[in-house]
Amino acid sequence: MENITSPTLLLDANICKINIHAMANKAKEHDVAFKPHMKTHQSTTIGGWLCDAGVESITVSSVKMAQYFATHGWSDITIAFPCNIRQINALNELAANISLTILVNKVEVAEAVDKKLKSTVNAYVEIDTGSARSGLPSDDIRGVKSVVESIHKSTNITWSGLYSHPGHSYGCRSKQQIEAVHHSVMRQFKQLKQELSQNYEDFEVCIGDTPCCSIASAFDSVDAISPGNFVFYDLMQQQIGSCKYGDIAVAMACPIVDKYESHNQLIIHGGAIHFSKESMETSDNTHFGLVAKRDNDSWRPVEPYSYVTKLSQEHGVVSCSEKLFQNSNIGDMITILPVHSCLTANLMKQYSLINEEQTLVEMMK
Amino acid sequence: MENITSPTLLLDANICKINIHAMANKAKEHDVAFKPHMKTHQSTTIGGWLCDAGVESITVSSVKMAQYFATHGWSDITIAFPCNIRQINALNELAANISLTILVNKVEVAEAVDKKLKSTVNAYVEIDTGSARSGLPSDDIRGVKSVVESIHKSTNITWSGLYSHPGHSYGCRSKQQIEAVHHSVMRQFKQLKQELSQNYEDFEVCIGDTPCCSIASAFDSVDAISPGNFVFYDLMQQQIGSCKYGDIAVAMACPIVDKYESHNQLIIHGGAIHFSKESMETSDNTHFGLVAKRDNDSWRPVEPYSYVTKLSQEHGVVSCSEKLFQNSNIGDMITILPVHSCLTANLMKQYSLINEEQTLVEMMK
Repeated sequence: MENITSPTLLLDANICKINIHAMANKAKEHDVAFKPHMKTHQSTTIGGWLCDAGVESITVSSVKMAQYFATHGWSDITIAFPCNIRQINALNELAANISLTILVNKVEVAEAVDKKLKSTVNAYVEIDTGSARSGLPSDDIRGVKSVVESIHKSTNITWSGLYSHPGHSYGCRSKQQIEAVHHSVMRQFKQLKQELSQNYEDFEVCIGDTPCCSIASAFDSVDAISPGNFVFYDLMQQQIGSCKYGDIAVAMACPIVDKYESHNQLIIHGGAIHFSKESMETSDNTHFGLVAKRDNDSWRPVEPYSYVTKLSQEHGVVSCSEKLFQNSNIGDMITILPVHSCLTANLMKQYSLINEEQTLVEMMK
Repeated sequence: MENITSPTLLLDANICKINIHAMANKAKEHDVAFKPHMKTHQSTTIGGWLCDAGVESITVSSVKMAQYFATHGWSDITIAFPCNIRQINALNELAANISLTILVNKVEVAEAVDKKLKSTVNAYVEIDTGSARSGLPSDDIRGVKSVVESIHKSTNITWSGLYSHPGHSYGCRSKQQIEAVHHSVMRQFKQLKQELSQNYEDFEVCIGDTPCCSIASAFDSVDAISPGNFVFYDLMQQQIGSCKYGDIAVAMACPIVDKYESHNQLIIHGGAIHFSKESMETSDNTHFGLVAKRDNDSWRPVEPYSYVTKLSQEHGVVSCSEKLFQNSNIGDMITILPVHSCLTANLMKQYSLINEEQTLVEMMK
């Protein structure tokens, strides 16, 4: 901490590698392919750790991210985002060099993309299993079949199967609730596979959320998993029930720049452009981060709990317990667990490894 | 729009320049110095437009931002953030080359910084006029005097005066409410100046929020203003009452990648890593952006209003009016006014000028 002068995203490489190996082993144990999502870390170094765990196929959320990882040697990439036909030139460049999988959710998209493709791509059809974001409802058999048919009729698109991000698992607040979401997703895919297997064979089902992939104990209806957040986890995942505090691999180190006794408040350098404005609700408050300290090789909340309760662009306000306030001085560093590690990492753009003498790990710019 | 393939932050240079000249003229008219805050745009190009309006002194929110603008020729910079003594080396480098002003809110900070300074700096004492973030309460005369005394006793720090960001104006919802906050701030400074002028002469008062600087019509108790957001404005400022929709100088252009008739929802490429997760509440909903179109050389909301109601990392969900839904196709671009232009600009890192043939304007990286 001594050399840190401004907000810094710390990464515990040991915890991150443990998280990676746990998920890789779980996939192996359940005989499903492991195609981790890279959107959380956006880093070729952490990609290397996934590679060490046997990963060959990856998932990304944008064409730009696919380009970044393709440049760094990844040759089997799924862009898990509805295909943006305006980016056809970039897709053609990627498809010429790697095995590229896209999401095609509409007949018109299949037709429009097919016309402009110069190489072959694979495509999943996205299924909305309850998140109400994108994808066809799992009971829209006719709709799914018509998109699959349009892909089969195409010249340059090969149908891979079905993809879903069960994002509604983020509303869960216990392992039991996550299991219930997962069972519902499994039931939906079991039925959909039965319907489709009358017409098609050899297609894959891939699902991608961290809560279900972390907690569920049966993956009968799926062939692949693509979680992303599990590499770091965060406060939101702890609240959902996906992980314990000790599994969280990232924390923000922020300088204390001011303090106000009347409200037991510390002012830190660490604002919305560092943490993001993702907030979460507890029974006590709405907050943007939780004060933590190192304890037995992981971060643990400092008790009684103290939260970041207000964020401006660069300022953070920590509402402290009396004890934390008395023990904190201007010029000290304070460590804070982030609400949503994906958004914090995206803003910070680099990691400072705590187990390897402050080595900096770069991300996609 | 034709060449845009991914989320792009559009900047209307004409509106931005009009906003800049309006604020510069207002400062001149009220005989207060104009030291605009650069944190909203973080761009040397837009800095150039401020320079064209006669600006010589600027305000920033971090040492990093001071370094960026110092590198680009600005020689009078205030870092309007409680002095971070861990960054003393960077402060010394800056102070060796430019006229640097810092915020010093504690005797211990004045003493610690003074010991390590190698050149002279100026310092404001920050006053909390109601925002409850940082600064000494305006009625803490003894506290303010003791910090001013510690600065006077120092070798390397020259006292400039008092600084305040009346951020509580962001809670206003009408011009009348903004005026009321501003009058309260003016009253507080009038009293504080009276108290301090018994002991000191020739000190300056600077205030910095966009709502008060945009709306107030009397600046008797202050000598300088340092608003930032006014260069772009945004939906939040329109809701507060600081500006009209037609004054908003930035908008996000996002590709429509999917649509779902059952909920009149469009899926756009444009998520939390583009807009930020800053949200705002209307009487109808909580949202992350408002659909707009060009009309008479500015952006106007498309009626009936349609909002971005959900953001994932890269996905945005637009809950549309029936009419907008029917007129929107996959592959089209859609234009959205941002809730908080500072955070959106900080994420986007560049601007695409709409009046000057898609010229790209770069920002601090």
